[in-house]
Amino acid sequence: MSRQPLRLGMVGGGEGAFIGAVHRRAAALDGDWRLVAGSFSSDAGRNTRTGDALGLIPQRVYPTLDAMIAGEQSLPADQRIDAVAIVTPNYLHAPMAIAALDAGFHVMCEKPMAMNVAEAEAIAAAVADTGRQFALAFTYAAYPLIEEARLRVARGDLGTVRLVQVEYLQGWLSQSIDKGGNKQAEWRTDPARAGAGGCLGDIGTHAFQLAEHVSGLRAETLCADLTTHVAGRRLDDDVSALLRFTGGARGVLKVTQVAAGEENGLKLRIHGTRGGLEWSQMEPNTLTLRWLDRPAELVRAGGPGLDESVAAQFRTPSGHPEGYIEAFANLYRGFAAAIRGESHQRFPDVADGLRTSRFVEAVVTNAASDTKWSGIEN
Amino acid sequence: MSRQPLRLGMVGGGEGAFIGAVHRRAAALDGDWRLVAGSFSSDAGRNTRTGDALGLIPQRVYPTLDAMIAGEQSLPADQRIDAVAIVTPNYLHAPMAIAALDAGFHVMCEKPMAMNVAEAEAIAAAVADTGRQFALAFTYAAYPLIEEARLRVARGDLGTVRLVQVEYLQGWLSQSIDKGGNKQAEWRTDPARAGAGGCLGDIGTHAFQLAEHVSGLRAETLCADLTTHVAGRRLDDDVSALLRFTGGARGVLKVTQVAAGEENGLKLRIHGTRGGLEWSQMEPNTLTLRWLDRPAELVRAGGPGLDESVAAQFRTPSGHPEGYIEAFANLYRGFAAAIRGESHQRFPDVADGLRTSRFVEAVVTNAASDTKWSGIEN
Amino acid sequence: MSRQPLRLGMVGGGEGAFIGAVHRRAAALDGDWRLVAGSFSSDAGRNTRTGDALGLIPQRVYPTLDAMIAGEQSLPADQRIDAVAIVTPNYLHAPMAIAALDAGFHVMCEKPMAMNVAEAEAIAAAVADTGRQFALAFTYAAYPLIEEARLRVARGDLGTVRLVQVEYLQGWLSQSIDKGGNKQAEWRTDPARAGAGGCLGDIGTHAFQLAEHVSGLRAETLCADLTTHVAGRRLDDDVSALLRFTGGARGVLKVTQVAAGEENGLKLRIHGTRGGLEWSQMEPNTLTLRWLDRPAELVRAGGPGLDESVAAQFRTPSGHPEGYIEAFANLYRGFAAAIRGESHQRFPDVADGLRTSRFVEAVVTNAASDTKWSGIEN
Amino acid sequence: MSRQPLRLGMVGGGEGAFIGAVHRRAAALDGDWRLVAGSFSSDAGRNTRTGDALGLIPQRVYPTLDAMIAGEQSLPADQRIDAVAIVTPNYLHAPMAIAALDAGFHVMCEKPMAMNVAEAEAIAAAVADTGRQFALAFTYAAYPLIEEARLRVARGDLGTVRLVQVEYLQGWLSQSIDKGGNKQAEWRTDPARAGAGGCLGDIGTHAFQLAEHVSGLRAETLCADLTTHVAGRRLDDDVSALLRFTGGARGVLKVTQVAAGEENGLKLRIHGTRGGLEWSQMEPNTLTLRWLDRPAELVRAGGPGLDESVAAQFRTPSGHPEGYIEAFANLYRGFAAAIRGESHQRFPDVADGLRTSRFVEAVVTNAASDTKWSGIEN
Repeated sequence: MSRQPLRLGMVGGGEGAFIGAVHRRAAALDGDWRLVAGSFSSDAGRNTRTGDALGLIPQRVYPTLDAMIAGEQSLPADQRIDAVAIVTPNYLHAPMAIAALDAGFHVMCEKPMAMNVAEAEAIAAAVADTGRQFALAFTYAAYPLIEEARLRVARGDLGTVRLVQVEYLQGWLSQSIDKGGNKQAEWRTDPARAGAGGCLGDIGTHAFQLAEHVSGLRAETLCADLTTHVAGRRLDDDVSALLRFTGGARGVLKVTQVAAGEENGLKLRIHGTRGGLEWSQMEPNTLTLRWLDRPAELVRAGGPGLDESVAAQFRTPSGHPEGYIEAFANLYRGFAAAIRGESHQRFPDVADGLRTSRFVEAVVTNAASDTKWSGIEN
Repeated sequence: MSRQPLRLGMVGGGEGAFIGAVHRRAAALDGDWRLVAGSFSSDAGRNTRTGDALGLIPQRVYPTLDAMIAGEQSLPADQRIDAVAIVTPNYLHAPMAIAALDAGFHVMCEKPMAMNVAEAEAIAAAVADTGRQFALAFTYAAYPLIEEARLRVARGDLGTVRLVQVEYLQGWLSQSIDKGGNKQAEWRTDPARAGAGGCLGDIGTHAFQLAEHVSGLRAETLCADLTTHVAGRRLDDDVSALLRFTGGARGVLKVTQVAAGEENGLKLRIHGTRGGLEWSQMEPNTLTLRWLDRPAELVRAGGPGLDESVAAQFRTPSGHPEGYIEAFANLYRGFAAAIRGESHQRFPDVADGLRTSRFVEAVVTNAASDTKWSGIEN
Repeated sequence: MSRQPLRLGMVGGGEGAFIGAVHRRAAALDGDWRLVAGSFSSDAGRNTRTGDALGLIPQRVYPTLDAMIAGEQSLPADQRIDAVAIVTPNYLHAPMAIAALDAGFHVMCEKPMAMNVAEAEAIAAAVADTGRQFALAFTYAAYPLIEEARLRVARGDLGTVRLVQVEYLQGWLSQSIDKGGNKQAEWRTDPARAGAGGCLGDIGTHAFQLAEHVSGLRAETLCADLTTHVAGRRLDDDVSALLRFTGGARGVLKVTQVAAGEENGLKLRIHGTRGGLEWSQMEPNTLTLRWLDRPAELVRAGGPGLDESVAAQFRTPSGHPEGYIEAFANLYRGFAAAIRGESHQRFPDVADGLRTSRFVEAVVTNAASDTKWSGIEN
Repeated sequence: MSRQPLRLGMVGGGEGAFIGAVHRRAAALDGDWRLVAGSFSSDAGRNTRTGDALGLIPQRVYPTLDAMIAGEQSLPADQRIDAVAIVTPNYLHAPMAIAALDAGFHVMCEKPMAMNVAEAEAIAAAVADTGRQFALAFTYAAYPLIEEARLRVARGDLGTVRLVQVEYLQGWLSQSIDKGGNKQAEWRTDPARAGAGGCLGDIGTHAFQLAEHVSGLRAETLCADLTTHVAGRRLDDDVSALLRFTGGARGVLKVTQVAAGEENGLKLRIHGTRGGLEWSQMEPNTLTLRWLDRPAELVRAGGPGLDESVAAQFRTPSGHPEGYIEAFANLYRGFAAAIRGESHQRFPDVADGLRTSRFVEAVVTNAASDTKWSGIEN
């Protein structure tokens, strides 16, 4: 009996959008998904053109998410979409995710998950109520060597963790391009569409999620400095924070979008009593392990020394680099496996979304006050 | 009017094969292709299971290429496959490519294209006769920064080229795994299925093609040492060659599959009178340019300084690494564009296949003789 | 007329000490100095053995600094030492430096300069009163590419500075070796001999000095977290601080000696409105410049693109790596030139010592309080 | 009893020379040597100025080597020089070395040791006859991690060696600066002063010596291509050679001085049946080991995992980079220890000089002929 791909509907991601196309490629890569429906833009012409370019049949290119939900629900179960990918600006995530979940669809949602903690809690409640699968696109956590790193820490290879350093340096908002018609920049720096955090919400959440995910630790308190360097910008473009983790580990988080000349420099370092690890997103196929008492090791994508579960994630032998789209495809692969009820690799979900919403809230609150250390709600 | 993907049939690439799955992912990535037919294995069960796992309808999973050709030709033109991807062992490339071309299909063929020069010439004749598109999977030439490198050399940035160094170091054949049931190793070291070159045909052709492609030069003569290090192996696993190019440039080619610990280390360096360039497949998103009179530059995937045609090839902003599968997808994208008659990026074709066949022949001949310098037929 | 080396006396640096031997090599490297006297250890046998091993005549191996001062003052001016190198534990720096200055000698002093701000001010007063040259061994500031970086920032290449990140990661105090007879570890973690800062004073001062020196900015306020990870240790072994600079630039300083597996990882990054720079002490011969609108550049030791004053500092052509001892020798070369009244390269001096003492005080004060932002006295 | 430094006389190395100053710094670094005499230039003024700048007494600044020999022999044994450092152009090495040896002095000689094999044999005979120590400045062999590499190979860590790749890429002779008053370039490209090899003798000898030294293998035959790219140059500026070693290992040697933009890129790679090693002179403090069955390791200068004899060679803890001058100083340290009859680290000597002379001869002979493989006399 032939195994058919799952069926995906997408909301957002019209012509010219960045992340929608990434989702489509990621979903297609392993043959687990087929895009069959979409509501790509509120602009009717743009919506139609995108659907045509993607080879969708016109009836399944919908003007709105609501129309897509209604249209798909009217189809036989074996044609209807299984899941909705939400790739709209942040302010639409919560209402759309909840609507899709309530209509019985699984959801793949872009990050940050919500505009604030209240929205995040509402999504979490909807996930709990509906029992649908919910994946959150914290893509970097889906690089296989991040899973290797997490396992290494979890099984104590590094000893007790003392230090967590995470940084995410971008430079593309170094100038005031927000007003120049750069759609990506525009909505990301508008509080009404992006939320209370600018850079903080856009990439700070990635950094924080990765730090907690790999270290296996929870940050209890933080002390933050939130800055807007570019004149006229309405949200932060630079975040620095000190973190204190349960058990005494100390952390530093540095995130910015005005580091001129930097590309997409997400880097994580964790040190314990016996050694440390380092991973950089821009060279994602190497995990460096340094030891107190023996030479450093380079654990390589697809190479020897990997946990079996990690080795199984690679699509090509070592030395054939996998990149960002492959990491993204790992999300879709895990999401599909979960929907199919197969044993699967873990993926970031609504709990990560709720946690990072609380992180954003704590940073914004702390940075605006004279309080040195603020708690992060668990 | 909706743009439908082109339809692909595959021969070879059953369960457990490596390169077939890469072709399928590469074809799927950009939505240009849909796999609709296949003849994946001469083993009927394996063939059926592969087709099922890929979601093909049973009628389009054929026992042989001939059956696929016949079956597809019987379908209406708007359902029939547009192209055949040939991902079988080397000895099947020529007969299958010629059969597919003669039946009117375009062909995407794995490398090395043929077992010998005679076969290569026969394929070239079939391409010329049929006017079909023929793409050859010299994947590494499809990395965008290789095109940037080629353009830089072509427009004289480096001055007159003096030195070409290409190396391709793998270690996976360091031990005698050829007989241990490793299918990849087994046929690659069998002259009847791989051809006269072992490592030489498998990866030496990649290295040579890349060196000529980027330098824009033709090697006129070569002097080679061909070695088999692993006892009992019937083909070379180690190649060293000196090259002399038209115009006086000198080259060194070093290719091996017994460099224990190496992964997939293809690296190209070219130096001219004004500067040099360096590119490594394992970190494909950086092209290093060194200059006689100013600091070295790192040209980055998606970053500033790229030729417009190269910048257009990237799917993600700089700092989001693209890898091997993306390079492979560039081949399929170019192949699709050529079939559709759109302006397109160049891809390796039958001329590259013929040229590298002549290179293999020249190396084998030279290495077996006391002649110092042997010509390479143009 | 023959140019004779200057004459150096050393206090501290007996057998088994680390930094004394580095000073001796640095002083010898360029022929500017000859070690002719010393008081190497309070242990008489050790003192004598050290002097013998260094080829000193016994009369000039003194039991104490006071004896050395008296002995040298009794010699004719053309035999007498010109300068004293102070390489003792921190608590001896101030009294010894002041004694040497007051006796008319120039001083090369190890860092941190003093136990506290009061001591630092006393040394500064002695320097002002005596008019003697005073060099402080902030060695890392003496790497030539640090001067290149400083000049690049100063002349505005990066635009207006927005971000300063400095880190200094060591791992050698990851375990409780302080009590195990490791002399280096022992005194560095004893408040009575090291001062109020452990890791903070030992390497935090290096990091802070470098950040201000290269950025050309002053940190106005800071917010710090000071931690002792190793049980029983009496001083901090881990420092994290947020910095706010005059003009609005933001900084992060991360310094630790418990990053297991790290060696001597001092790294500085500065970003402005037009680009950024990066320099790592462990690969000191490359300065990376990244730009908003063009490819990154690698400025190399001895290579093209350097300021003339920087190019003049290298002893070997590009590609012949210079390291830590060469940087240290640059200090001695500059110190010698200043004593001789020749035009010279700047070296860290008493102002740097006073400033970093104030930094240490501000961190200790802030970290012990609930105040978020503390000023650093200028 | 005080340990006095050994006394060194230098021939060559006047103002503006490169390598003489390196020798002086290397000799001074560890306090083992004191420069007390010299004959720096055949130009009397230059000779005098150099001696003055170095603080020598005028009586020991001699017009010729012969005068230095005579003058020093007339001094009491405890004042007389112990050794002569020969840093003149190549054609003077043999007569000077023989004269110095015959007069009873130890000799530190620049490379290449001789103009031809006959000269090399004459020096070897003089060393044998006089029993004096003779050190040859194959500096790169004196990097401690090269000794670590040699030991690793010798004790079989890599298994049986199959592949040796050595390259040495420089770019400084990319243009015709030989005639423009660049003294370094001028004599190196004059057959009468440099010998039969240009680039071959100058840096090819380094590469070949390192390859044999670390691999522990002897090259039996070679096949070479010798090229002069710059019009009007009288010696080669580019060398490529294939090597066949005893036991079946295969090698490639690539050496050039016209790789525009390259600095001093000496790199060695050796692969055996179990793994491989890689070392680059420009980052000399890391030795990379790659393994067939486990992650690659980075063995670091001064770090864990080193052989005890290698660990003892470093002057600073790991992470404090040592460079070219330190490697050079290792030669002088070993040379001093040998003269003093202490147990010592091995240094390149007359055997290396003779062997590399035979290599040069074999390359020149082979490259000028149609013979594919030429033997190298042992």
